[in-house]
Amino acid sequence: MKKINIGLIGCGNVGSGVVKILRDKKTLLSEKIGLEINLKKICDKDLSSKRNVHIDKDLLTGDAKDIINDPQIDIVVELIGGLHPAKEFITEAIKKGKNIVTANKALLAEHGAELFALAKDTGKSIYFEASVGGGIPIIKALREGLVANKFNSVFGIVNGTSNFVLSEMSANNCEFHKALSEAKLRGFAEKDPTLDIEGLDSAHKLVILTYLCFGKLVSLKDVFIEGISRISLADINYAKELGFEIKLLAIAKKEDGQLQVRVHPTLIPENHLLSSVAGVFNAIYVSSDLAGNLLFYGPGAGQLSAASAVVSDLVDLTQDLKAGLFRPTMNSVEDKSITKLCKIDDVSGRYYIHFTVLDKPGVLAKIAGILAKFGISIASVSQKVKSHSQQAVPVVIIIHEAKEKNLRLALAAIDRLNVVKEKSVAIRIEEV
Amino acid sequence: MKKINIGLIGCGNVGSGVVKILRDKKTLLSEKIGLEINLKKICDKDLSSKRNVHIDKDLLTGDAKDIINDPQIDIVVELIGGLHPAKEFITEAIKKGKNIVTANKALLAEHGAELFALAKDTGKSIYFEASVGGGIPIIKALREGLVANKFNSVFGIVNGTSNFVLSEMSANNCEFHKALSEAKLRGFAEKDPTLDIEGLDSAHKLVILTYLCFGKLVSLKDVFIEGISRISLADINYAKELGFEIKLLAIAKKEDGQLQVRVHPTLIPENHLLSSVAGVFNAIYVSSDLAGNLLFYGPGAGQLSAASAVVSDLVDLTQDLKAGLFRPTMNSVEDKSITKLCKIDDVSGRYYIHFTVLDKPGVLAKIAGILAKFGISIASVSQKVKSHSQQAVPVVIIIHEAKEKNLRLALAAIDRLNVVKEKSVAIRIEEV
Repeated sequence: MKKINIGLIGCGNVGSGVVKILRDKKTLLSEKIGLEINLKKICDKDLSSKRNVHIDKDLLTGDAKDIINDPQIDIVVELIGGLHPAKEFITEAIKKGKNIVTANKALLAEHGAELFALAKDTGKSIYFEASVGGGIPIIKALREGLVANKFNSVFGIVNGTSNFVLSEMSANNCEFHKALSEAKLRGFAEKDPTLDIEGLDSAHKLVILTYLCFGKLVSLKDVFIEGISRISLADINYAKELGFEIKLLAIAKKEDGQLQVRVHPTLIPENHLLSSVAGVFNAIYVSSDLAGNLLFYGPGAGQLSAASAVVSDLVDLTQDLKAGLFRPTMNSVEDKSITKLCKIDDVSGRYYIHFTVLDKPGVLAKIAGILAKFGISIASVSQKVKSHSQQAVPVVIIIHEAKEKNLRLALAAIDRLNVVKEKSVAIRIEEV
Repeated sequence: MKKINIGLIGCGNVGSGVVKILRDKKTLLSEKIGLEINLKKICDKDLSSKRNVHIDKDLLTGDAKDIINDPQIDIVVELIGGLHPAKEFITEAIKKGKNIVTANKALLAEHGAELFALAKDTGKSIYFEASVGGGIPIIKALREGLVANKFNSVFGIVNGTSNFVLSEMSANNCEFHKALSEAKLRGFAEKDPTLDIEGLDSAHKLVILTYLCFGKLVSLKDVFIEGISRISLADINYAKELGFEIKLLAIAKKEDGQLQVRVHPTLIPENHLLSSVAGVFNAIYVSSDLAGNLLFYGPGAGQLSAASAVVSDLVDLTQDLKAGLFRPTMNSVEDKSITKLCKIDDVSGRYYIHFTVLDKPGVLAKIAGILAKFGISIASVSQKVKSHSQQAVPVVIIIHEAKEKNLRLALAAIDRLNVVKEKSVAIRIEEV
């Protein structure tokens, strides 16, 4: 049986999972693909610590060059994460004629353009199924399964940590910090969860989804990013009363020839499928011109689910290598109906706004007056009951569609009023 | 640019969609795949009637042999449906060296073993993404995206008509026949909807899903099939009170080394994602050993969604042809942990049971006594309010896990009681 040699750089959690699958499923895979995937070398900076999978000491090296320079290795799997030296390793490996499998969303979001161009120029492939949605085969679905489709929008719950925290707040009626502690306790959040909670991880994945759906590799700085750390239990409950759940969504949306690319907490109707995505699960909801609205749901992280995606990439690559095929569908085609990126200031939408005001006559009139001055009209208002400890009362307003810029100006003016006691909270509403 | 010639047999609804996509997306597809998919001939028995897409008269033929015998045609797309002459056309085409794309679930469910064997022996491929779930790329996900996974179960809402009817009953509080009329009115049900409503269409798709997940092409006669025509509005509402929705599920499930393959109305917890799948939408929920629990959701039917799946198959096949590749992952590998098919009599599960009894003392005791005699224990009982017109009252019982066979015997005995006024209704409960 023909053998394809691969080298693995980075043998942490997901890397160990790949080793385990290639060993445990050796027979199944050979039977399915008619050749053997041979793990020839493993590079890790940590050569001594225990892993939850047995690794043959002879395969281990501390020097990535032992893999990159090995002429018998056809595919390099990069699982060290982070920008450097991952970028250098991949660049070198491609130049040495290797094909790449990676789960590195940060790297692809930051340097995808350069790496994809290099791969294309040299006739090599970069596969990255594990970079978004763990074991959910979303990359393959967008690239191959929906190959004839154009996309209108993609809405993703793509960060398990944030979704766990919001679900926990909603289901157990607890505040953000308590939910985050629970996430840490259960191993769903890093010690420093900033990247997840503040939306950067979602933004990395959104850059990749945007590339697949619209053929545009947008720069990370052009993605509007807002995390969930300012979401309070009160907001979750008020939203619920209005028939909405709050989710951290990664959104890429074509409207009037402009592409919006943004990550932020979002109110979505409670009967939408995305509202039912609880805990650390991920889901990607795409709207396409032929296949309609589709949802892909599954665990967004985990050793074996991400490794499952890596191995599916390996299988595809081995088929390509066996046939001497470079799969041109790897290259996304730019959606030429998009004329420009839409700045967040120019995005229009409905909003949920939570004001904290003194319970005095005339307050609502003042707020409504300022909103009207900026051309913003109110769809509904409700004043919430004041708790004993509160000096001020919460007022929740839903506004009709307005431009973000106008809303920001209005809110700044409102927040300067004497009767307003806390910075107002505005959360976007999406019909999805 | 290299050209791959295809022939289309059957230019009805989906066929016209394929013609439309190949024409409207010609540039996009060429750009993505680096070659041209050329629709060389179209065969349809109806050469005169108007279609919603323009078809060049020169391409049309009334004789499938014009396609099957054309040495320049590499791929035959079969979209006539039904068993004959579809089977003969495909068999002939394979023998003439063509690869096949089909959406014909009935044919694959009935004669898949023979056709797949023929294709394998001759080194040709049969692609069938459009056979299950319309435009949802579920076949590709199971075969390629989850290539390293073993599956524990697959639960599918795979018939849009039935799901529309059940959703309509549930959402609009109407009886089966009213919901079915509405489905017909809106074009979601055929004039004779038996195939959809009685579960046979779901069973066809289940045979295909079972083949992909477990590598076994079960015979249609080994699939237990029960439709939704006996589901009443009362049952939907009682189930709702208990926290369940009723869905027609296609289920393949491995338990204790035995494979259960069955289609029937099922109570599933209302907070499960499958419960939120409304209208004509389809969803397939799979449980896998590596990637965990995944859901794939989208429109299960429709001209362009099914055609989108056909075109994705065409694209895959053109890549294979260009590279001279036969993709061995096309062949499912048998799950050897399965020792036998489990007969429906031997399936164990929880049940919802609806009795219609006289409102007299001792009735419940009689029912409970018979259930106990067959080793069946009751989890909950509730007697429903009698409406004015009723002589008898509904009693709803949930039982703990019991064997189907024992339950059937118990129900037959109960139904013979004088105090029981209608045939009892038993619906399986799945935890999913």
